[in-house]
Amino acid sequence: MGRWEPDARGRMLDAAIELFGEQGFDKTTAGDIAARAGVTERTFFRHFADKREVLFSGPGSLDEMVAKGVAAADEDASPLQMVIAGVRQAAVELVAVRTREQAADRVRIVEATPALRERELLKMATMTAAAQAALVERGVGEPTAGLAAHSAAAVFQTAFTRWVSGDTDLGLPECVDEAAAALRDLY
Amino acid sequence: MGRWEPDARGRMLDAAIELFGEQGFDKTTAGDIAARAGVTERTFFRHFADKREVLFSGPGSLDEMVAKGVAAADEDASPLQMVIAGVRQAAVELVAVRTREQAADRVRIVEATPALRERELLKMATMTAAAQAALVERGVGEPTAGLAAHSAAAVFQTAFTRWVSGDTDLGLPECVDEAAAALRDLY
Repeated sequence: MGRWEPDARGRMLDAAIELFGEQGFDKTTAGDIAARAGVTERTFFRHFADKREVLFSGPGSLDEMVAKGVAAADEDASPLQMVIAGVRQAAVELVAVRTREQAADRVRIVEATPALRERELLKMATMTAAAQAALVERGVGEPTAGLAAHSAAAVFQTAFTRWVSGDTDLGLPECVDEAAAALRDLY
Repeated sequence: MGRWEPDARGRMLDAAIELFGEQGFDKTTAGDIAARAGVTERTFFRHFADKREVLFSGPGSLDEMVAKGVAAADEDASPLQMVIAGVRQAAVELVAVRTREQAADRVRIVEATPALRERELLKMATMTAAAQAALVERGVGEPTAGLAAHSAAAVFQTAFTRWVSGDTDLGLPECVDEAAAALRDLY
């Protein structure tokens, strides 16, 4: 990337969200996004494989954030506590780069487009597998690692839905705490 | 369906599993499946929208089985117990129509084919949403319904993986009991 495009990536993300919202995902082309962001199509394809990936290649990988949180969790934490620390870490890193409004706009577009919903499911499944692997790395056996990872993914999704709903003033990390407390109350 | 094809659907399922296993999903056509099953392509397309759907349209819907089990759960069961009763009901109905070997063959094919893995994720997400809706129907509020439904889906997946692994003589419903016990031990 040249130094004359300091935030080309961010501009393309904003442009994609705007255009998908205005005219729908199917009718928007990579060229439209590039034009709105003031970059060439060639620049677009240096950053993203296709228009779908604009919505799925954040500044950081959710998988890495979760794995980092699991690795940093207290020695005496239970497997479930470890992996909830993982998704909380992801929540903290995510709000550093996305406002609630941006996240809510993205959710609306994903929900409206079946191909994007399938891609989102894959993203969550990949995050769950990363969390599971991070637990195994810390010595947790199966089926505990898998069950704990799926539970934490459910906590993350619940927290995210609540955060973007606009029904709360809580930040995303605090929504994770709230959902984790609700999970404990299931038992 | 004419009465001269008493189990055309079952034969097409068997043929698809065989052919996907022998020559891969991508190289197998709907016509190949029809020919192996001894039916016309027209008959194939009366039963299935495309070759992918052969693996995803069981004799019964997982969603309905789970919803039925939730609806039948004890009045005094907790939300988590209700929804685990739901996935256990699905397990009982599933083993009535599929052998472990058939299920294991299907898993191998799905795992090997990205398009099928995405479709499988969608199937699990749909089952989770059905379980969540069945809980709400029984008066369970959010976020409890969502968290319980995701936990039960994790139990079902864990149980299914264990059942098809060949590492146990337990049936699928008993694998659900085992995974549900492991989930309780997370807390």
